[in-house]
Amino acid sequence: MLADDPLGASRESPEDLTPYREALKRLADDPNQQLVVAVRGNRVVGTLQLTLVPGLSRRGATRSIIEAVRIHAGERGSGLGSRLITWAVEESRRQNCQLVQLTSDASRTDAHRFYERLGFTASHIGFKLQL
Amino acid sequence: MLADDPLGASRESPEDLTPYREALKRLADDPNQQLVVAVRGNRVVGTLQLTLVPGLSRRGATRSIIEAVRIHAGERGSGLGSRLITWAVEESRRQNCQLVQLTSDASRTDAHRFYERLGFTASHIGFKLQL
Repeated sequence: MLADDPLGASRESPEDLTPYREALKRLADDPNQQLVVAVRGNRVVGTLQLTLVPGLSRRGATRSIIEAVRIHAGERGSGLGSRLITWAVEESRRQNCQLVQLTSDASRTDAHRFYERLGFTASHIGFKLQL
Repeated sequence: MLADDPLGASRESPEDLTPYREALKRLADDPNQQLVVAVRGNRVVGTLQLTLVPGLSRRGATRSIIEAVRIHAGERGSGLGSRLITWAVEESRRQNCQLVQLTSDASRTDAHRFYERLGFTASHIGFKLQL
């Protein structure tokens, strides 16, 4: 799913899983990370990563950050994306977060409408720097 | 500094430091968090929080997220903001991150030009949901 995407195609290497396995261990060892996988039958059809970030601002609020939202091409329009995001929002509430945030590539206009329908506000500009 | 800001004024409570002290403990206990404070004389004049987020995408890349960039009103234009961001980028390289990201409120147009001068690309839309 990572590589089956206009943005992901050039930056993944599914033929060598070693760096992915190492990253999975880093995720599993970090109590502030949750990686959720949706499975239908024997097939992984969706992923979402939820990160808790403590902070001082907003009266010492912890925020959560959603990353790595991927829905299998065959599942788009099935409501799976909504279920994953709704889970992430509810889990953030359970963890006493006061804010959920995510960024979406400016070219993904369908995704923007999707997040707005789920109650998110497009209030920020997301800046990235490749190292 | 948190409250001395058009966006922060309504969401901070400097008269009661208890929630901030509790949040500082959560930050100190999390090895993926670094909170940097710039001091001139006896006065805190700048802050920045750097969070490391492991992930599977981009060949298992770890990214860093910059939050809580605050510069004391009397220090604006002094180059302190550039020094803090430059530190965060260099530290992210030292920690083998492949990407540094941050979001900035859409109304902070001066900040957007500042991040672009430092090499960041405004490629994403930042969505937030208050809980």
